[in-house]
Amino acid sequence: MTASVSDHPILSGLLGDVEVSVQFSAAVELQAMLAFEVALARAEADEGLIPADAADAIAGLAEQFVADLDALNQATARDGVIIPELVRQWRVALGEHASHLHYGATSQDAIDSGLMLRLCEVLRILAQRLGMLIHALDALASRFGPQPLMGRTRMQAAIEITVADRIASWRLPLVELRDAVAALSAAGLPVQFGGAAGTLEKLGPSAVPVRSRLAAALGLADRSQWHSQRGIITELGGLFARITGSLGKIGQDLALMADAGSAVLGGGGASSAMPHKRNPVKAEVLVTLARFNAVQISGLHQAMVHEQERSGAAWTLEWMLLPQMAVAAGASTRIAAELLGSVEQLGEG
Amino acid sequence: MTASVSDHPILSGLLGDVEVSVQFSAAVELQAMLAFEVALARAEADEGLIPADAADAIAGLAEQFVADLDALNQATARDGVIIPELVRQWRVALGEHASHLHYGATSQDAIDSGLMLRLCEVLRILAQRLGMLIHALDALASRFGPQPLMGRTRMQAAIEITVADRIASWRLPLVELRDAVAALSAAGLPVQFGGAAGTLEKLGPSAVPVRSRLAAALGLADRSQWHSQRGIITELGGLFARITGSLGKIGQDLALMADAGSAVLGGGGASSAMPHKRNPVKAEVLVTLARFNAVQISGLHQAMVHEQERSGAAWTLEWMLLPQMAVAAGASTRIAAELLGSVEQLGEG
Amino acid sequence: MTASVSDHPILSGLLGDVEVSVQFSAAVELQAMLAFEVALARAEADEGLIPADAADAIAGLAEQFVADLDALNQATARDGVIIPELVRQWRVALGEHASHLHYGATSQDAIDSGLMLRLCEVLRILAQRLGMLIHALDALASRFGPQPLMGRTRMQAAIEITVADRIASWRLPLVELRDAVAALSAAGLPVQFGGAAGTLEKLGPSAVPVRSRLAAALGLADRSQWHSQRGIITELGGLFARITGSLGKIGQDLALMADAGSAVLGGGGASSAMPHKRNPVKAEVLVTLARFNAVQISGLHQAMVHEQERSGAAWTLEWMLLPQMAVAAGASTRIAAELLGSVEQLGEG
Amino acid sequence: MTASVSDHPILSGLLGDVEVSVQFSAAVELQAMLAFEVALARAEADEGLIPADAADAIAGLAEQFVADLDALNQATARDGVIIPELVRQWRVALGEHASHLHYGATSQDAIDSGLMLRLCEVLRILAQRLGMLIHALDALASRFGPQPLMGRTRMQAAIEITVADRIASWRLPLVELRDAVAALSAAGLPVQFGGAAGTLEKLGPSAVPVRSRLAAALGLADRSQWHSQRGIITELGGLFARITGSLGKIGQDLALMADAGSAVLGGGGASSAMPHKRNPVKAEVLVTLARFNAVQISGLHQAMVHEQERSGAAWTLEWMLLPQMAVAAGASTRIAAELLGSVEQLGEG
Repeated sequence: MTASVSDHPILSGLLGDVEVSVQFSAAVELQAMLAFEVALARAEADEGLIPADAADAIAGLAEQFVADLDALNQATARDGVIIPELVRQWRVALGEHASHLHYGATSQDAIDSGLMLRLCEVLRILAQRLGMLIHALDALASRFGPQPLMGRTRMQAAIEITVADRIASWRLPLVELRDAVAALSAAGLPVQFGGAAGTLEKLGPSAVPVRSRLAAALGLADRSQWHSQRGIITELGGLFARITGSLGKIGQDLALMADAGSAVLGGGGASSAMPHKRNPVKAEVLVTLARFNAVQISGLHQAMVHEQERSGAAWTLEWMLLPQMAVAAGASTRIAAELLGSVEQLGEG
Repeated sequence: MTASVSDHPILSGLLGDVEVSVQFSAAVELQAMLAFEVALARAEADEGLIPADAADAIAGLAEQFVADLDALNQATARDGVIIPELVRQWRVALGEHASHLHYGATSQDAIDSGLMLRLCEVLRILAQRLGMLIHALDALASRFGPQPLMGRTRMQAAIEITVADRIASWRLPLVELRDAVAALSAAGLPVQFGGAAGTLEKLGPSAVPVRSRLAAALGLADRSQWHSQRGIITELGGLFARITGSLGKIGQDLALMADAGSAVLGGGGASSAMPHKRNPVKAEVLVTLARFNAVQISGLHQAMVHEQERSGAAWTLEWMLLPQMAVAAGASTRIAAELLGSVEQLGEG
Repeated sequence: MTASVSDHPILSGLLGDVEVSVQFSAAVELQAMLAFEVALARAEADEGLIPADAADAIAGLAEQFVADLDALNQATARDGVIIPELVRQWRVALGEHASHLHYGATSQDAIDSGLMLRLCEVLRILAQRLGMLIHALDALASRFGPQPLMGRTRMQAAIEITVADRIASWRLPLVELRDAVAALSAAGLPVQFGGAAGTLEKLGPSAVPVRSRLAAALGLADRSQWHSQRGIITELGGLFARITGSLGKIGQDLALMADAGSAVLGGGGASSAMPHKRNPVKAEVLVTLARFNAVQISGLHQAMVHEQERSGAAWTLEWMLLPQMAVAAGASTRIAAELLGSVEQLGEG
Repeated sequence: MTASVSDHPILSGLLGDVEVSVQFSAAVELQAMLAFEVALARAEADEGLIPADAADAIAGLAEQFVADLDALNQATARDGVIIPELVRQWRVALGEHASHLHYGATSQDAIDSGLMLRLCEVLRILAQRLGMLIHALDALASRFGPQPLMGRTRMQAAIEITVADRIASWRLPLVELRDAVAALSAAGLPVQFGGAAGTLEKLGPSAVPVRSRLAAALGLADRSQWHSQRGIITELGGLFARITGSLGKIGQDLALMADAGSAVLGGGGASSAMPHKRNPVKAEVLVTLARFNAVQISGLHQAMVHEQERSGAAWTLEWMLLPQMAVAAGASTRIAAELLGSVEQLGEG
């Protein structure tokens, strides 16, 4: 899976997020898939399906293995997934224990479990950032809370409220989102393990015990295979879109407040035609990212129409969307922190 | 709020759902908003903000009030919301207690709380239907579970599985969705009550106690106002889309199985050009509804960019989308039940 | 096909359009499909495929036939399309010439050609309305054009422009859209005629001559069948979305101008909580309709993945989306005219 | 602007397109913007607004200028656009003529005109590729056209057609799309030139002559500024989505045909769990790309709600979507060519 603007030499500073996008780098993805294979081998060895020294050798790959990326790229173009060639490369590196690697597993097991491992990290980052944003809002409420602010409904002056009232409406969704992220992390993202067609047919009675050990070793939740059941992907995407949406609302408000003079933002952007301007760039970008994720979430729901035991077309669509949504959520939290940090004044006069 | 194909004289049988769409009829919507006003008046009377006999009179409106729909339609075209004219009509009907109706409330309070009341009913219907679908799948598994079925991945024959394996992958998401619906119902949908700009400024220290009483009376969860915090709407829409998505996957599978001869469906549709055909209409429509909701969910997330204290533009967009999504979810459960009931054979040969 | 808010007893005044939505009523749809059958019979009689008096009898149906809507609704639920039952009802009404009706045609021929006939009328309405909007902008430019207006970029004051400059940026897209609508009308929307699987196999060498006569009689462009080639649907949807998008930009601008005091709009909406407010309801609704169509257009493009000779799932999805988009485009032009007509002042001071 | 999977070390072979994505590389983007500045300077010199030797010096930048990408990235994060810093770097490189560069222009002029230059190249590539695909289909029709094929409607066997019939339904949309691309190229993509707020206020009576010369020099169509009129972006995006949609339909058909045995595809993908499989990877990816662009097109239409003279939020959203759509269209044509080239057999038996 990949992400986009994060890698762009010119736009990554504006729209990207280093910490989240690294989770979608080739290096970290390869690492995560190898972590799956190592944990699988250990679980299979513990259940007596493969020799313990094969599991040890597989664990040793993490130290020594260097992937041939060009070969992976070419093979993925042909196979539609990275795993056949990657398993081949791993097996070459393994030598005698080769046949015990990836035993009973299929591409989707390694890729989706590897994805879940990386999304655990993304959730951790987002929960922490949301916590920081809540503190930043609390700090702003402390500084400017009692200031009067004209409440506006339907883009018209309504009645006077305070800055604290406006901030409270920004803050509560972030608390709910932080709690939702934390709850999802606590429940555990699901391990994916089903074998060729979801039945773990090669593992016989050891199938469920292996899966259970595998999940525990990876810090994932044990669950029967979800090769063709993609609700969890839409839930994660929905969470990312709610994060960008809630921060986009703050951005929209601050851009309107900056224009109306009820917010003063430091560090605004320069204009090539009008040197006097201080554009509320970060506020605008929060709106952009909210609308971006609102667009992408549609595709994740389309990918739920995932035919038969595993769909190539639907699954590949997820690869093109979910990483970008995660990075947009990350960028949104990063930019919101910068924006809130740049606030110099809130309230009328 | 409204829905669409449910009201169509020719397409409602194919794409609609009577039980869900009635919740979005004008009559039930008016009823729900009046239920809000009645509960509000009672809560305000209990807190000493309005006279008890005013609350009694308002409660009596439910028996006697007949709305002038033409006037409501014209006024809504002008005001953007129904409430100013509806409150006027209610007050005319009330006579002397008129000023105590809708005290301290704003349009969004009555409309969004009324919506939540109706969505409680929608969730109840969906939970019940999902339970029925799970039983229907269990019955199919009992009848055909051991039959062999060629497992298919990436639209190619993979390895043999059983009908029970395929059914298990259809069933688990429905169990999770039923549980999610039940959990949302149990947690309670949130009451909306904020007044003109979210601060309940007219109620003074009684604001929170009134809101708490109001929520309890309506069977909703007490929560501070969410006029401009629309995450709950995307969560509900996401749930509806996950229901249609999970059933769309079943529809896609059954259409492919019917074509390949591994499913026999009774009651298929006729063709005007080819009388011999039995089209898997219900299976196809499940795919249609899945893709429909996958499209609409995008708009609900766009509406999270909800500026200032209340946005007319973003809120109105929700009205055009959420009811249709709820009806699509309802129709999807109805059609899935019919489709599963029509299965005559599953499995190869 | 159907549309939604246009039929709603309370919201149709706000969000609907009578003139466009009538094109998607059951009555007009039935009429259009019968017009197809009448023209087809005439073309087939002219080519000697059916008797001339059968064509006369079919033409006579227009006067006398009354559809049994309940039976159509039930049959459509079963068959997925209206045509098998409708053809049955027509044939009963025809008596002895029954077998000559719908000769060589399939459901999609009648439905899609009927749709094109109605969309011709929609395009005519839109072209006329766009012309009126251009005149309305010209009139505003005459009245207020020289007034100064602070040009704003990135939501910040930039340099002073005039009201005429702003109006020019609203006007040009409408000119382009009116021209695009007119060009599409002039080129002619395509007739649909392919028979059971697109090959017009029953008509032999008369196939192309019949289609050509049919197209000419209906005022549609002759084109080989497009049962599974749905680009034209996305083009029409794209046009509708560009209309709502261009008018949504005007709405967004006027809402911001009303808030900033550089526009005075008459006839604004009332608030239930704040009687002093005059909400820019029509300006907001233009934004709503723009975002609504921006959501729906996605689904029309999804429906281009239209498998094999004809897809039930993809085609039905179009039915749920395109009519609503057409009505939204119509409503948008109606509301924009009202909004522009309500402008009392433009420009600073 | 940027694109995504094209840059990914592992997925670019599967989902990317080198020739199209290079148009969205930083290097080519910088080149295109400089081409704008060079042509602008020349046009302004020809109209006597700046000295001829300043225009010469600016033209000389193309040879010598090396951008400081890190500084551009940081500045873009602050300013929201690259131009202020890029103009600064260019001016440093220019020395004495510095003030004559970018005279009267704004960020959007350089960026959007530069984008149009690159999209001209993208259209050229796509037109050529569509031509090749049409030839490839002709070749397949020559080889397999008379073979019988079961026509399928609503995923059920309908009547027998020929391979030529199916191919004809794939081919016609490609002809129409090639013609549409060619027509757009022939009409010319529009130059963007408006200055700070669209009025070219610094150029006085020379404004239109300069713009006309500028357009001619760049091979773009002369048009008054479209800073806030984004219809052309949705038209281009719609075209890209129609290309991926039409090819996605072919992919879906070939995947179904491969499964049913009515197509034999060479070079299919390997599976890590089932070495015997030959997955129709390229056919599936065409479906993926069709659905991907169907998702993204929604966001381009959202960006039409482009407030005031120029919107930061809406414009930035285009940057995140349009390049990816262009690359998806490119990849789709590349992969379709490979897929059609791999066809070994079409038709039943």
